[in-house]
Amino acid sequence: MKEKLTTYKLTRHPVVRWLLAINLIITGTVNANAQLHQYVDPFIGSEGDGHIFIGPSCPYGMVKPGPDNLKTSNSGYSPGADKAIYGFSQVHVSGTGGGPKYGNISVMPFSGNEDDIKQESLRNNEVTHAGYYSVRLQKWNIKTEITTSSKVAFYRFVFNDQNKKAIKIDAGEFLGEKPVPDAREAQQFVGSEIEIVSDNEVKGYSRIRGGWNNGTAYTVYFHVIFSHPFNRFTTWKGVQLFAGKKIQFDEGKKTGALLFFEALQTDTIEMKIGISYISTLKAKQNIDVEIPHWRFEKTLQETQAKWEELLKKIEIDADASVEQKKLFYTALYHTMLMPVDRTNENPLWENGPYYDDFYAVWDTYRCSHPLITLINESRQVDIINALLQIYQHEGYMPDARSGNCNGRTQGGSNAEVLIADAFIKKLQGINYSLAFDAMLKDATIPPGGNEEKEGRGGLTDYNTLGYVSNSFVRAGNRTLEYAYDDYCLAMVAKGLNRMGEYRRFLHQASNWQNLWRPIEDNGSKGFIMPKDASGNWIDSIQCDVNNGRASYIKYTPLAQDWPVCVCWWCGFFYEASSWEYSLSVPHDVAALIQRSGGAADFEKRLNTLFDKDLYNVGNEPSFLTPNLYHWIGRPDLSSDRIRKIIAKNFNASHSGIPGNDDSGAMSSWLAFHLVGLYPNAGQSYYLLNTPAFRQTIIHQENGKDFIIKANHLSGKNCYIQSVTLNGKAFQQSWIEHEDIIKGGELVFEMGDKPLEWGTKILPPSLSTDSF
Amino acid sequence: MKEKLTTYKLTRHPVVRWLLAINLIITGTVNANAQLHQYVDPFIGSEGDGHIFIGPSCPYGMVKPGPDNLKTSNSGYSPGADKAIYGFSQVHVSGTGGGPKYGNISVMPFSGNEDDIKQESLRNNEVTHAGYYSVRLQKWNIKTEITTSSKVAFYRFVFNDQNKKAIKIDAGEFLGEKPVPDAREAQQFVGSEIEIVSDNEVKGYSRIRGGWNNGTAYTVYFHVIFSHPFNRFTTWKGVQLFAGKKIQFDEGKKTGALLFFEALQTDTIEMKIGISYISTLKAKQNIDVEIPHWRFEKTLQETQAKWEELLKKIEIDADASVEQKKLFYTALYHTMLMPVDRTNENPLWENGPYYDDFYAVWDTYRCSHPLITLINESRQVDIINALLQIYQHEGYMPDARSGNCNGRTQGGSNAEVLIADAFIKKLQGINYSLAFDAMLKDATIPPGGNEEKEGRGGLTDYNTLGYVSNSFVRAGNRTLEYAYDDYCLAMVAKGLNRMGEYRRFLHQASNWQNLWRPIEDNGSKGFIMPKDASGNWIDSIQCDVNNGRASYIKYTPLAQDWPVCVCWWCGFFYEASSWEYSLSVPHDVAALIQRSGGAADFEKRLNTLFDKDLYNVGNEPSFLTPNLYHWIGRPDLSSDRIRKIIAKNFNASHSGIPGNDDSGAMSSWLAFHLVGLYPNAGQSYYLLNTPAFRQTIIHQENGKDFIIKANHLSGKNCYIQSVTLNGKAFQQSWIEHEDIIKGGELVFEMGDKPLEWGTKILPPSLSTDSF
Repeated sequence: MKEKLTTYKLTRHPVVRWLLAINLIITGTVNANAQLHQYVDPFIGSEGDGHIFIGPSCPYGMVKPGPDNLKTSNSGYSPGADKAIYGFSQVHVSGTGGGPKYGNISVMPFSGNEDDIKQESLRNNEVTHAGYYSVRLQKWNIKTEITTSSKVAFYRFVFNDQNKKAIKIDAGEFLGEKPVPDAREAQQFVGSEIEIVSDNEVKGYSRIRGGWNNGTAYTVYFHVIFSHPFNRFTTWKGVQLFAGKKIQFDEGKKTGALLFFEALQTDTIEMKIGISYISTLKAKQNIDVEIPHWRFEKTLQETQAKWEELLKKIEIDADASVEQKKLFYTALYHTMLMPVDRTNENPLWENGPYYDDFYAVWDTYRCSHPLITLINESRQVDIINALLQIYQHEGYMPDARSGNCNGRTQGGSNAEVLIADAFIKKLQGINYSLAFDAMLKDATIPPGGNEEKEGRGGLTDYNTLGYVSNSFVRAGNRTLEYAYDDYCLAMVAKGLNRMGEYRRFLHQASNWQNLWRPIEDNGSKGFIMPKDASGNWIDSIQCDVNNGRASYIKYTPLAQDWPVCVCWWCGFFYEASSWEYSLSVPHDVAALIQRSGGAADFEKRLNTLFDKDLYNVGNEPSFLTPNLYHWIGRPDLSSDRIRKIIAKNFNASHSGIPGNDDSGAMSSWLAFHLVGLYPNAGQSYYLLNTPAFRQTIIHQENGKDFIIKANHLSGKNCYIQSVTLNGKAFQQSWIEHEDIIKGGELVFEMGDKPLEWGTKILPPSLSTDSF
Repeated sequence: MKEKLTTYKLTRHPVVRWLLAINLIITGTVNANAQLHQYVDPFIGSEGDGHIFIGPSCPYGMVKPGPDNLKTSNSGYSPGADKAIYGFSQVHVSGTGGGPKYGNISVMPFSGNEDDIKQESLRNNEVTHAGYYSVRLQKWNIKTEITTSSKVAFYRFVFNDQNKKAIKIDAGEFLGEKPVPDAREAQQFVGSEIEIVSDNEVKGYSRIRGGWNNGTAYTVYFHVIFSHPFNRFTTWKGVQLFAGKKIQFDEGKKTGALLFFEALQTDTIEMKIGISYISTLKAKQNIDVEIPHWRFEKTLQETQAKWEELLKKIEIDADASVEQKKLFYTALYHTMLMPVDRTNENPLWENGPYYDDFYAVWDTYRCSHPLITLINESRQVDIINALLQIYQHEGYMPDARSGNCNGRTQGGSNAEVLIADAFIKKLQGINYSLAFDAMLKDATIPPGGNEEKEGRGGLTDYNTLGYVSNSFVRAGNRTLEYAYDDYCLAMVAKGLNRMGEYRRFLHQASNWQNLWRPIEDNGSKGFIMPKDASGNWIDSIQCDVNNGRASYIKYTPLAQDWPVCVCWWCGFFYEASSWEYSLSVPHDVAALIQRSGGAADFEKRLNTLFDKDLYNVGNEPSFLTPNLYHWIGRPDLSSDRIRKIIAKNFNASHSGIPGNDDSGAMSSWLAFHLVGLYPNAGQSYYLLNTPAFRQTIIHQENGKDFIIKANHLSGKNCYIQSVTLNGKAFQQSWIEHEDIIKGGELVFEMGDKPLEWGTKILPPSLSTDSF
């Protein structure tokens, strides 16, 4: 396939780009229902803070090939037109913050100086779509297209210069390298190897450690097969080139190969790269199993079909706008990029489902996993069983994990919430007794010197004082989150009839109150504030010492001690202020309201938060907050806030995600709100809000459909007047998971002002429910 | 080399066997001085509890090829004549207890049924020597000889049946397998791979986890080269055989290959196996570097030369008996089998010295490392730097480590003692500031859920109560050992002028007294006894509950709650009674004597211990105890005890080691006592005792010789009358390391009864010295 080069300015207008992409890729009739994957625009969130990976991937796909043009970028990608592509590497993460991870096994077509390991080019004609990516390398006019199966990347290169066709394979490249040994969050090179297997095959590996989660060394093995033979090659080790040398074994130096195809008559060269975490032979086997042919379009279509299969589980109103469809289906797509299914690719132990790149559960427990549960319950069962295998073999479930290694707890030990969510929603195929042991481990055994890696940091304080004192970093959110984790433990304990543990953890679920200080700020009273181990409130926090002089900041509910005063991970709260965190009591909003002075004060408090911009739309701690109006009988206000937040912050442009997508966390928050449901993860229900669509059908794995209708919905008719479930009046502003699972029809009658619905019966809270 | 088969009864008489071995192997004139390695008899300690590995190894050698004829054996070997050899695997440990580790990449020559993966034979004509092993496989009359370089094993097989020459390579075999998943201390299969590279090359790997230290998965890569081509082959995966199939990739099943050489005219086939923890290419590179030829004898001689180089560092009296020489040089040999030098074979991080198989430091800190320091100081520096790299990259120094993973703390965090020992002996090339950080980590940061893996279990008790309460297992020896570790911290802190920490840890060094209970037992008073967290003494210990009824044992100084009452690792003491452990205060024997009622009571106490057989010669907790008479001014009694202990328990027979050799721990204890020195590891001096030799010359790395003479030594003249150091009278019963390092001559005048020497000035003790 050769096409005339058109110089093409990168446009930010996504619809034009998307239509163009479709035209380029899709042939034949487009069936509107069957082609939901066409609404996926991987560029959404790729600019700004979204950090979205733009290359092709299968759902939960292990291989994520894509362009690298910025070594400090989490996704490898920078939208900057001045940033030259220096390679296409095979493993990436999506939406993450902190230090980069992966970026391994970099390939690069080039027509440049053949004695130079460095080959890079500016780009144009960049096109991306679910399962597809293409770009033109401007410098040499080389077109590169990529599609992928689960473990194999498929490349098609079209060269312009017949006499200079070369491809570089770099086993030493990776993202986030820093010259300082053991620099925090930097990946570090351990070793690599490359071997020319035949005149169209190359294999090897890259071994890297560190990165965001400070992980132990992981090894990405690869096997490359070309559609055509290269006529000569040069390999390298370190900075030295060796023409014709077939093997560069691992002696702790970077290795790679330059392959020359100038003897070839055709201008098109295709390439398959199988990836494995087991061995090069397994990488080759992955090619044999997944892409045993040279039909690029077949692989692309198969991957599109995999996405289609999952995306169509939630069928939204056919009349929704293209923008809405793009927003929604891209959000679903983002949610299913990670964690990564590495079953049969686990180098650590035998058997069982294996998932990696929980990055982090702290981000994804709130919406991503509940969304996976709704769309693809069996997948969530596998993921939880993978977590339990990690617990069994390594001692703790991860709060975050990447590169086969737990690392970087953020706040609570949030795998507990995933287990409670599965238990309370009655997911089958999980050993809940084992799962409870794993939860208990988190709640009772301090991780000691591994507090950044796993478990509950500050647990010794928490389990003796009832809160984490300022002797420990992140004491504020740790206390809050552990209290919620303990609620989750209590619920599972109760279900397993372990009543002693139930009572203990139910009691501890109120521990957040031990840091509740009745001070006033911006007109509201009562905030989670730091306390020392003797029980004294802390009024100021010591900053780092400069030139021998310590400075202090007064600690107020809006104070932010990180990262200016103490390190990024060392503040009283993680990534948010007390104004935000003091509203984070998902299991007992009623008690929170009571401690805040009652419903009126609480409403005022919420209004202050949003109206004074004390709320951070781009981060997880406030995910539930817009819904808290439900608990004062004002679901209409929740819906108002949510609608405004989405309108202001989310759109289908490249910068359409307001914060790190965090492997789909932000996107799943959006997706839920677009259909009018919002999960309170770890609990059995969804809060109901005004949906964006007149109709949504959830096609569940059990074969039963659940339909959400919003009759008379319009920009003006945005208030729920009344609700029926399966034809019967439904007064409550939340719905139980079991009512969805059964299948049925939830109908909102919409109108232009709020009525009585949702004002009388309030959603569940620990202190008002009978336990 | 073909020789007539002689049926040969396995004899226990070592001299006959050894002479025979020498005759078989060594050609040319034997120069008595140059051939100390000939006194090494790897069979010593291979029967009974010694668990010695009998195959060839280089000093600290990574590859340890040898016969496996018992899957539950730690060394792979059983002396039982009824135990058939089922393979020769390439990695072993020596002298260890607990569950086995390694036993990977098993090879087996056979002339048996070619469709059977299982091939085994009884043996005869077993010969072993430093760097050499041979055996005749009785069933098929195949002679197997093995020698080795550091990372490559070299085999020579001589077949009898010309028409049935076959060799099996089993990438799935390993020691200590149990059918139960995650069985404690059992190794577990993770994966394996095998590939026929050419008609004389095979490569692959074995990936195994678990074992004694409950380690994460380790991968042993191999590359095999044969001297002659095989004419056909069969590979297998699981239980299925595949004739002619070249590749069995890793899908979590056991793989291997049967190679057939029947077309070959010669009866002799040689084979080199390179081993690596990095990759198969690195394994091949190890062959290219270490054994690029087919000269078996050359490799053998090179390995013998490496041993010779080290053994001759301590030159004992030429007139010593062959038995004495065998005992001594085999003891040195055992000391240098482990830890294993894996520099450039570390898959976890880049650069630096890397040692594995600290198995365990608890065993080896007392004598093995001080002996290595004396013989080969630069090696000890590398080992300590490797420990510090482990601390830097993984968070804690190991107390034990194997398969690239820390695991199984036994008592204290004993790497502290190694560092103090190096510091106090002024070893150069160590970053002691970093080392002190590593010590501080152990002393201040509890390992949380990883108490079995690393750090100090029960530290939360220890650092608040001043002892480990019976809430934690092994509370007795932990308290004792942490107190000594803290003494080590104090000494390093003092040397680094960190006086705050010096005072803290010096104070804590007396923590053993917090468990000193003034009760009487067998005529002696005062014992380390269990206490609860509230400070109450514990009189009885609950055993496991059987049929719903708990039984208790009265806890006395001779009570042993493990393993009958609680689990092996769960007693108040680890592997010894209070009678033994209550004498384990290496830094303050003076205080111990005082608390025991004074010198007379202490002498009585020691006599009771030895005379009533309350002392266990075969285990490390009592290593120092025979020397304690020095502190009551009776070094003659120490020497008497030591002489009796050696005579009764050690000899040059196959069962000549009285307990697990523990990677050379027992052997180094013996070696020190044979030359009349005994180190108090972590401190700067050696206690002096009657040596076994009239003269010992220590050739030190600094080029200076230190000579120990015992004039008039005889069976009768076994008491030190007087001592001179470099011609000057030397009254003290110990010598400082720096006096040895300077070079010089220590002369004992021996006589038939003790005189005044050593009775007046007592060796150092914390409470009597000025600190």
